[in-house]
Amino acid sequence: MNAVYYSGNKTFTPGEAPAESLQAGQVRLKVAYCGVCGTDVHIYHGNMDKRVKIPQVIGHEVSGEIAEIGPGVEGFAVGEKVAVRPLQPGVPVPSDNGYTHIGQNLKFIGIDSPGGMQAGWVVPAHTLHKLPAHVSLQHGAMIEPLAVACHDIRLGEVQAGENVVVIGGGPIGILIALVARHRGAHVLVSEPNPHRLQLIRSLGLQTVNPREADPVAATEAFSKGAMADVVFEVSGVAAGVQIMTQLPRIRGRIVMVAIHPEPKPVDLFRFFWRELRLIGARVYEPQDFEEAIGLAAGGKISLDPLITQVSPLQQVQQVFETIDRNPEGMKYLLKCN
Amino acid sequence: MNAVYYSGNKTFTPGEAPAESLQAGQVRLKVAYCGVCGTDVHIYHGNMDKRVKIPQVIGHEVSGEIAEIGPGVEGFAVGEKVAVRPLQPGVPVPSDNGYTHIGQNLKFIGIDSPGGMQAGWVVPAHTLHKLPAHVSLQHGAMIEPLAVACHDIRLGEVQAGENVVVIGGGPIGILIALVARHRGAHVLVSEPNPHRLQLIRSLGLQTVNPREADPVAATEAFSKGAMADVVFEVSGVAAGVQIMTQLPRIRGRIVMVAIHPEPKPVDLFRFFWRELRLIGARVYEPQDFEEAIGLAAGGKISLDPLITQVSPLQQVQQVFETIDRNPEGMKYLLKCN
Repeated sequence: MNAVYYSGNKTFTPGEAPAESLQAGQVRLKVAYCGVCGTDVHIYHGNMDKRVKIPQVIGHEVSGEIAEIGPGVEGFAVGEKVAVRPLQPGVPVPSDNGYTHIGQNLKFIGIDSPGGMQAGWVVPAHTLHKLPAHVSLQHGAMIEPLAVACHDIRLGEVQAGENVVVIGGGPIGILIALVARHRGAHVLVSEPNPHRLQLIRSLGLQTVNPREADPVAATEAFSKGAMADVVFEVSGVAAGVQIMTQLPRIRGRIVMVAIHPEPKPVDLFRFFWRELRLIGARVYEPQDFEEAIGLAAGGKISLDPLITQVSPLQQVQQVFETIDRNPEGMKYLLKCN
Repeated sequence: MNAVYYSGNKTFTPGEAPAESLQAGQVRLKVAYCGVCGTDVHIYHGNMDKRVKIPQVIGHEVSGEIAEIGPGVEGFAVGEKVAVRPLQPGVPVPSDNGYTHIGQNLKFIGIDSPGGMQAGWVVPAHTLHKLPAHVSLQHGAMIEPLAVACHDIRLGEVQAGENVVVIGGGPIGILIALVARHRGAHVLVSEPNPHRLQLIRSLGLQTVNPREADPVAATEAFSKGAMADVVFEVSGVAAGVQIMTQLPRIRGRIVMVAIHPEPKPVDLFRFFWRELRLIGARVYEPQDFEEAIGLAAGGKISLDPLITQVSPLQQVQQVFETIDRNPEGMKYLLKCN
């Protein structure tokens, strides 16, 4: 086997990748590592069966080396280390307003088309970002989630000296906290899971457990009464939405990072009363990938503590079962070659 | 009588204003007109009895002439025409972040302290904005709501050529639409009341009746598929909140103007998916009053069609009863001298 296929009903099936010859603009990667994203877990649970084409190779947090270069591709050489920005812009529509990274006809590679949980992955060359030689390929597989964090921080316009509260301390929440701290912000992470809290504190970040303490009082103490300049809602739960409007200062910003599939009650009065702002943020633009690679290359963000486990691709089924059993886990990487 | 007192339970009682001598920084106005705001109607309905001190003179949309100048007040002369910006900043707290117009300890004059429904009104001189001589005192009483609209448009960063949808065609919604049009935006107003729709159309604005047509399709047609750059939610109802996230383009803005006392379900997924932004906007800052006065002085905004009725102060009880019976009415002015 050189690929694993999501085949529905919480099942992965080992198999062979189709022998594709490269089309114009394409590159074949020797995939090094593919991280498991929360979205992959949603797929595994069957929540996205309308979007994936079963059986399908999934996965989109990928590092690798260039193995083969298709017609018309310039600027890349076989053997170069790269990370993949898994976005395929579609035909633009007027309401896209030029934002190709989230355009209406965007295809997400690894969800809407085959992903990186295979030994050899064919992707458009425009998705590639080169990794400096000294960046490890494990860190390379963390560039995609780190770019999400860079995008969220950029859209939240986090400035040095600002007070930032991150609601939800999973991998993305922690990466947001680390990037915010690197920007010079003071950071507090709200997270209920004790194991995650331990990890977050080991990274030198301040924390509050909302099951044990009031996040409003904690934010007040942490900020010396100034309250949060920026709040990141990364929890995806109603309690996070309930608390997010209580934490900002007047004209503070709330960045909506989490996916809330169903409408949830929001304190709109608070938006009015304190002139709060809500900023939706999704995926990344090329500059976010470049920033993420720069942070990883400069050793500015501590990525190793976030890697919970590295497993061979063949163990994909056990990995997803482990993730389901262990809510405290962070990033699981699959070694694909 | 020279004053009317809200005395609870949908009742106004005629009475006399207390004979106050002016303190340092105060000015006595000969009130010309006092407009009735939606907030005054809320007070009349008893919804704000915790905040007003019954019996209390209310009203905050005021024009008048300076009748007497207190100690230490400079730059004003008796007889000058003014409009009142009815905000009394309180002791600042750190989380105000310097925004005195909505600071935590702000007092709203006319709600938290006596208002303008009286012949002579004592206010701090810092609340006054001079009106050019040729601006009518009726228009002067419209400066306060017009300043709200200017503030909303400013915070929504409306640009020439942008597509703007206003949800809710009451006085504030119409003023927002008119200021947006003056800025060069294309404007569509969504409003279900047929009488209001007629008035809005008579002002040359495009409309959609959400009970008869789909506002999403109407916005699509109106914007030639580009959808709204900015949406103003002024309706204050759940249907407005439901539709507000459906109308913007990618990275479009939604300005929260309406008061939603209780949390309402919001499509947060849409904020994430299309990177929408929500901008809370409340009252005004001094520059919004200056902009409103400039618009009124230049005849740039058609204010007369919005004045439904002008009544003597003595008829305040009938005026509020009329407002309750006539949801299509716009602005009711009380003549206070």
